[in-house]
Amino acid sequence: MTNNQIYMQLAIQKAWKYQGLTYPNPAVGALIVYKNDIIAVEAHQKAGSSHAEVLALVTAYETIHQKTVDFDKFNSHKAHEFLYALPEGFFSEIIMYVTLEPCSHIGKTPSCASLLTKIKPKKVVIAMLDPIKGHDGGVQKLLEHGIEVEVDICHEEAKELLEPFMIWQKRAFVLFKIAQTSNGKIGGGYLSSKDSLVHVHQLRAVCSEMLIGGNTVREDRPTLDCRFTGDKAPNIKIYARENNFDRDIPLFGVEDREVHISNDLDFTKPSFILVEGGGGMLSVLKDRIDWILQYQTPKLSAHISSYDAEVTLKFLFQDKKGIDLMLWSKIYNPVL
Amino acid sequence: MTNNQIYMQLAIQKAWKYQGLTYPNPAVGALIVYKNDIIAVEAHQKAGSSHAEVLALVTAYETIHQKTVDFDKFNSHKAHEFLYALPEGFFSEIIMYVTLEPCSHIGKTPSCASLLTKIKPKKVVIAMLDPIKGHDGGVQKLLEHGIEVEVDICHEEAKELLEPFMIWQKRAFVLFKIAQTSNGKIGGGYLSSKDSLVHVHQLRAVCSEMLIGGNTVREDRPTLDCRFTGDKAPNIKIYARENNFDRDIPLFGVEDREVHISNDLDFTKPSFILVEGGGGMLSVLKDRIDWILQYQTPKLSAHISSYDAEVTLKFLFQDKKGIDLMLWSKIYNPVL
Repeated sequence: MTNNQIYMQLAIQKAWKYQGLTYPNPAVGALIVYKNDIIAVEAHQKAGSSHAEVLALVTAYETIHQKTVDFDKFNSHKAHEFLYALPEGFFSEIIMYVTLEPCSHIGKTPSCASLLTKIKPKKVVIAMLDPIKGHDGGVQKLLEHGIEVEVDICHEEAKELLEPFMIWQKRAFVLFKIAQTSNGKIGGGYLSSKDSLVHVHQLRAVCSEMLIGGNTVREDRPTLDCRFTGDKAPNIKIYARENNFDRDIPLFGVEDREVHISNDLDFTKPSFILVEGGGGMLSVLKDRIDWILQYQTPKLSAHISSYDAEVTLKFLFQDKKGIDLMLWSKIYNPVL
Repeated sequence: MTNNQIYMQLAIQKAWKYQGLTYPNPAVGALIVYKNDIIAVEAHQKAGSSHAEVLALVTAYETIHQKTVDFDKFNSHKAHEFLYALPEGFFSEIIMYVTLEPCSHIGKTPSCASLLTKIKPKKVVIAMLDPIKGHDGGVQKLLEHGIEVEVDICHEEAKELLEPFMIWQKRAFVLFKIAQTSNGKIGGGYLSSKDSLVHVHQLRAVCSEMLIGGNTVREDRPTLDCRFTGDKAPNIKIYARENNFDRDIPLFGVEDREVHISNDLDFTKPSFILVEGGGGMLSVLKDRIDWILQYQTPKLSAHISSYDAEVTLKFLFQDKKGIDLMLWSKIYNPVL
């Protein structure tokens, strides 16, 4: 493994921490090396807030000056303003690693490629070009300004990182979430660490809609809100044939939420559907789920509740979430 | 995370790939940086063969010269001979990262500390000092020869890596191994990838003894040999009250193996006990098991066989093994 690959892997790992949470934006990570030391590792965290490159540049400034900036660096307009005002040549010795080609269009935030042509880093290393027409052109812009560019470092890993984004460009990205012990038990109250619970509520807050099985609603009587993060609760679709639910089940009482009950699943609309449920829901939906996210707790349990399904997976990424293991997989569909 | 920490983490990760397999030696990793590039990442692989530092130096030579050496670099005497014969100053610009203090005593191989005083690297970064009396003194030797030394980088992670070694200094290290699907199912024939199966057979080949439950022997009728690696099969202790096993069960027919049947478990002798079994064995032994190794396959299954136990774990390290996830945990005993 070359140093280029090591740095890019670290940027990719950072980006995975916000996988899904950046919806409808892609998960992107950026890392800055200065005098052979890593001085910043950042990721895009939330749509509408600063891009990974911008955060990394502000953090790099903070590291070099050993002081924090006095503005909100997640405010992309303020961050861009600050970076544009730095003395010329301030970042001329840095190398930036970024998991996706810097954007060349002005969206909610100014273009990162333009910013980089102003900043003029020594070199920009990019894992993959932006596959979305109209978003590409960042590399071209950098080259036109005489900035050295290297592309396709850890391309495969960057492509997997970007997959949800590519899917929700054209249809619903369907993520099935389940919390379990290390021996696959799913019963016995809260299984996960606080960090995992917060993460679930962050996903609920950004998804387009939550999908849950009718049986789970009847048996677990869930609330399905975002109380650990304070965000607005997601709208719910209950997958059921009959509309005969006890309206005292807490999820119906959550303010400012729509609940739809239907057995018609339409995943054609570009969106992010978060599915929660057990083995039944998983088995019914297994041909329509894209990815599975397992929160695996560090315990073995003798609880009766497990879940059954026949699904072949491909492990994509694993990370610690507090004391838990967070395991991202995709449903593996072998090419026939 | 500093570059020092990143390099040391990579050395630690490399060492984990041979965790247990180095018995009775410790798992140790070494990494060499030259002109700000990583030119070698190696680990001690097997007792009696070259230490991590030696392998890393030979690999570094190969990387610098872009050619492979014409001797077996796992032969430590040949490797030492080769390294001693290199021109003075050949490695004067390298920085070596090693997860454990280089040995100062001459065991099956010459002392690594002596070799390093001859090689004279620019700097040696060490995750932790050797806690075994008589093995320490390596740092002292390096300092006496004017080599810059930095210690305690990633000390906690290095200590976890070393735990089996520390345990088998004074009593049996007991490792419970189980192969499962991602939803905790353990039935349905071979679950694991070929890489995982080979790894299990490597562990069987080096352990002092395998321990297996009587019920598993009766139900699964296992062979418990090392046919995927061609090594001698381990001796077996069957944990059972009655000595009434069908002698046609394959494990009894394996050549050059002892089988003991007993319900008396004595773990006082310094050794490495590999336990295979299901939930019953795990529940019986849970207060006497040190670590658990789960081979988790990328599939969900609806098979009936799962395993039950009430055990709190601490995740130590996870790594891919082929397509599988290899999950090392320790039994967590909270301090009361």
